Amino acid sequence: MTRTGSPAPTLVEVARLAGVSRATASRAVRGGERVSPEARAAVEAAVREIGYRPNQAARSLVTRRTDSIAVVIPESDSTLFTDPFFATVLHGVTTALSSTDLQIVLLVGQPGERAARMVNYLRAGHADGAIVVSHHRMDNVVEALAESAVPAVLIGRPWDASLPLTWVDVDNAGGGRLAAEHLLARGARRPATVAGPADMAAGRDRLAGWAEVVAAAGLATDAVEHTDWTADAAAAATGRLLDDHPDVDGLFVASDLMAEAAMEVLRGRGIAVPDRVRVVGFDDMGLAARTRPPLTTVVNPAPAMSRRAVEMLLAQLEGTGGTESVQFPTALVVRGSS
Amino acid sequence: MTRTGSPAPTLVEVARLAGVSRATASRAVRGGERVSPEARAAVEAAVREIGYRPNQAARSLVTRRTDSIAVVIPESDSTLFTDPFFATVLHGVTTALSSTDLQIVLLVGQPGERAARMVNYLRAGHADGAIVVSHHRMDNVVEALAESAVPAVLIGRPWDASLPLTWVDVDNAGGGRLAAEHLLARGARRPATVAGPADMAAGRDRLAGWAEVVAAAGLATDAVEHTDWTADAAAAATGRLLDDHPDVDGLFVASDLMAEAAMEVLRGRGIAVPDRVRVVGFDDMGLAARTRPPLTTVVNPAPAMSRRAVEMLLAQLEGTGGTESVQFPTALVVRGSS
Repeated sequence: MTRTGSPAPTLVEVARLAGVSRATASRAVRGGERVSPEARAAVEAAVREIGYRPNQAARSLVTRRTDSIAVVIPESDSTLFTDPFFATVLHGVTTALSSTDLQIVLLVGQPGERAARMVNYLRAGHADGAIVVSHHRMDNVVEALAESAVPAVLIGRPWDASLPLTWVDVDNAGGGRLAAEHLLARGARRPATVAGPADMAAGRDRLAGWAEVVAAAGLATDAVEHTDWTADAAAAATGRLLDDHPDVDGLFVASDLMAEAAMEVLRGRGIAVPDRVRVVGFDDMGLAARTRPPLTTVVNPAPAMSRRAVEMLLAQLEGTGGTESVQFPTALVVRGSS
Repeated sequence: MTRTGSPAPTLVEVARLAGVSRATASRAVRGGERVSPEARAAVEAAVREIGYRPNQAARSLVTRRTDSIAVVIPESDSTLFTDPFFATVLHGVTTALSSTDLQIVLLVGQPGERAARMVNYLRAGHADGAIVVSHHRMDNVVEALAESAVPAVLIGRPWDASLPLTWVDVDNAGGGRLAAEHLLARGARRPATVAGPADMAAGRDRLAGWAEVVAAAGLATDAVEHTDWTADAAAAATGRLLDDHPDVDGLFVASDLMAEAAMEVLRGRGIAVPDRVRVVGFDDMGLAARTRPPLTTVVNPAPAMSRRAVEMLLAQLEGTGGTESVQFPTALVVRGSS
């Protein structure tokens, strides 16, 4: 749907012919108010005379194509800029689409009421398909998407596994197992975890993998604090863990951003990492190499997942598949914190 | 255009009635390929029977409203996440729109060819209006916007002042004057500047203000290096300045991100800041308070400008004005670097 180089008549020509300002012509063409009947008539006559087309909605009706892909992030704009996960995903999607003619349309906004607005925007046909990524449980988004005709791929599986939606995700339970096995192998006998939300697949599954390994070793799995994905909440959760279980010697934290905050709390209490408490995070998107000490962490293959999500969505748009969900294996990167 | 709570028929019902999968129903409804003639006929019959509407393009044609505002950032996604200017602007726009029902649609992409694609997306009627912000000269974007019927406000004035576009901007020349006056008042006798691009209004005007004050003091204005807005380019430019003018004792750098890089170069050469070279930046969006030493800088009132841009755009959409461009005054914040 390129119009580059098109000799289509312009609004400036309409305004000139109608003898009105460009702003007035714009309002008249858009059907807005605050235009005199005379000006509106002159603009409409000019539109007809030179064949100006104010927008391409009519064309969209025929082709049902907008040549755009929405990236939907039901998070606050500050989360978007704070958590490296989103920059990594967006870069992966951008790179994967760079050889295509598709425009990326980024929809950002708080979960909840605003998320419904995003789906409405998609249902209104303003993008050909959507890639949806969030740290939050987003039942309203995924249910509305599942009900809609909008082709979509989720990065991160939905809580309700029965919904007819396609996703890519990392093996969160496997990552939790890797973290626990490593902490135990390094000698931890009182492992704890700052887990993600209990009502999100990533939070639940990372915890489940960790607990499976800890229980199999005959150790207690009661040192668990759930929290959202923010640094502040993780710091508070770490403080509660240390208050309730002062003998903790190994800590699995469900994201690197949260693990950095946890290590600050440990440092603030004079607890040496890794000498007294060994710490493992989850993500490995740049931050883990820059923390003090550098963070041992589980790899979240966000770049590869993002590329795959794009490939699957493009396949859906072409009707050539892309509807089988994909789980990515993970790995542990050992650094100074453990 | 809210559909929340609407009892509209869903695609799942269409698929059930047609006896096909949701994916097949979706492709058929969207006019895609890879659908058998039988399945297509069954889906079309089901659509008619239950009155399913695949998208709202028809409705858009009537109302010409999408209830969305585009924020157009013709930059790479890495620039978006690196330079705090964009996070600040996006937060300002989001906050200003939080009390409205308008969805924010973020269009990010390289300047150049991709920028034309963004304007095509807007011309196709996928947003009611646009706020455009970039560190780059974006002639193709602003010219295409000026020719279009899309209501728009630019954050940062366009290079071509004759274009019929509305903008908000900071008084860049005034900021350059403030920086130079401060450096001279602190005793600098060999001032230099790492300036922005010579073909951008912000780069040109900040330099012009600096040079005006330096020349009026009877000092040389030849220690100038132009660069793009990146930290890497600013570091290289600072190195060239110090090579060519080893007696530099005052440095005005056109952004805080660049000034941080310049101070690293000075530190690497063992040149003390502020004792041997006094440094002044431009922006004051958080970074300046965190540099070593904290950075004296010119305030770029991006939050206020963003709010005003939203107000102006909403006024344009309502036909109640908002077409007068606005220049914001600026101020100097003195910290340890000078």
